[in-house]
Amino acid sequence: MGRVTERRKVIRIRDGAVSSRPDTLVAEEPLEIRLNGKPLAITMRTPGDDFALAAGFLVSEGVLAEQGDLQNIVYCAGATVDGSNTYNVVDVRTAPGVQIPDITLERNVYTTSSCGLCGKASLDAVRTTARWPIADTPPVRVGPELLASLPDRLRAAQRVFDRTGGLHAAALFTEAGELLDIREDVGRHNAVDKLVGRALQNGDLPLSRTILLVSGRASFELAQKAVMAGIPVLAAVSAPSSLAVDLAAETGLTLVGFLRGSSMNVYAGENRIALRTAAAQG
Amino acid sequence: MGRVTERRKVIRIRDGAVSSRPDTLVAEEPLEIRLNGKPLAITMRTPGDDFALAAGFLVSEGVLAEQGDLQNIVYCAGATVDGSNTYNVVDVRTAPGVQIPDITLERNVYTTSSCGLCGKASLDAVRTTARWPIADTPPVRVGPELLASLPDRLRAAQRVFDRTGGLHAAALFTEAGELLDIREDVGRHNAVDKLVGRALQNGDLPLSRTILLVSGRASFELAQKAVMAGIPVLAAVSAPSSLAVDLAAETGLTLVGFLRGSSMNVYAGENRIALRTAAAQG
Repeated sequence: MGRVTERRKVIRIRDGAVSSRPDTLVAEEPLEIRLNGKPLAITMRTPGDDFALAAGFLVSEGVLAEQGDLQNIVYCAGATVDGSNTYNVVDVRTAPGVQIPDITLERNVYTTSSCGLCGKASLDAVRTTARWPIADTPPVRVGPELLASLPDRLRAAQRVFDRTGGLHAAALFTEAGELLDIREDVGRHNAVDKLVGRALQNGDLPLSRTILLVSGRASFELAQKAVMAGIPVLAAVSAPSSLAVDLAAETGLTLVGFLRGSSMNVYAGENRIALRTAAAQG
Repeated sequence: MGRVTERRKVIRIRDGAVSSRPDTLVAEEPLEIRLNGKPLAITMRTPGDDFALAAGFLVSEGVLAEQGDLQNIVYCAGATVDGSNTYNVVDVRTAPGVQIPDITLERNVYTTSSCGLCGKASLDAVRTTARWPIADTPPVRVGPELLASLPDRLRAAQRVFDRTGGLHAAALFTEAGELLDIREDVGRHNAVDKLVGRALQNGDLPLSRTILLVSGRASFELAQKAVMAGIPVLAAVSAPSSLAVDLAAETGLTLVGFLRGSSMNVYAGENRIALRTAAAQG
């Protein structure tokens, strides 16, 4: 359990030259998440931080919102025929009195269980499920220079990426740019779930005064995870989707994309971006 | 329906200069896939090619293997309260006599339904579900120069990427390097499902003499999709995961990663790579 990388033999071809050597790869294993003993979802993930991953997944699904909602999380032994513990099945027990949204158990589909049949319904589902409004009072204010400095700091802090090139990363920063936490995973949703789950375990939800940075694109689901954790600013190195922008505009989330060098695009929530010049020169 | 891109207002910040203008984003909407009338999975996807996406998804899940397995695919009207057709729900009807694997309907989890509780079980599940062995006789042989030329041709053929930067792409090439088809989607699994589904609809499964190129990483699930479609060579621009390499080694799939410029790594199935020099100089 818990191996973040594995070694495999690889044949390298460089400008026609062929060599053989061991290579470090990002580890990938399935994780089954159970809720109060009932199988809920299976996700392919990089082992490690499994309890945080499960807790964060359940924040996104609207099941958990604060530390007190969680009773405990355990690895399930005996999930295999021979009774051994694969450390690939976790059971999350909720505290007495925690209401489980029907939608999660009924639909039993991974991550997208809160999505309806169209983009509008998906937005509605997030609005009705979110237990933390984005409520940063006074609003978080960040300058473009601070935002521009974050991707380099994410890469500097990534422990595994340089060796495998196969990991997505997500990092939480304070509004002053201080790195709070960083998580990596073969799946980009998982990296964010691990961050949010760790925060829940530490009693830090809602994350009202933080910036979430992701190493890739900003999909609807990543924006949803930010909103469900009460994060006011989501910044992505690459492009957002239309539905991520719509969700951000509707919930008040600040969404920054294409954060590269000193350039970036602000798609929603520009009130939190401290612009020195007028907001519309072009 | 079917809009691949949408326009949104964006505030651009470039070296301190601020401007406002419309930007083109990749469209994202949920798609519910039903099998013989029963809801099976929801995926977030870029609208368009929905029937191919549903068909390809069901190839990966071991439900469909050839054109004759498919009776028809329709959009479901009346899925919403007001009875309108959102074009976000499709129903796939199988031909009489097609056996539906129990695992798919029982687990009802997206994409990973064939995964067990550990990597080994995941490999076993693919082996027992695959209806097309990788059976290229004589084996496909491709040179590093041909492989190295494919990413540029993928990018040249991408219709939407240049405008949005938000799409994953997947392309099928013949063993001679001829581009057969290219699909794009906000989700990387979906791009491959669309390719495979289109091939099934055209009666082209198994894809025994093709090369599948993906624009990002090679996860277990992408390797699984290649194997389920009988594709002998999977090449990725970025890193593979450990479990993708294990699956490739076990099934005989050729797996190439970090395909950039004239460089690449061969992780499995090197017998299909035409190397001029000895396979182990280093």
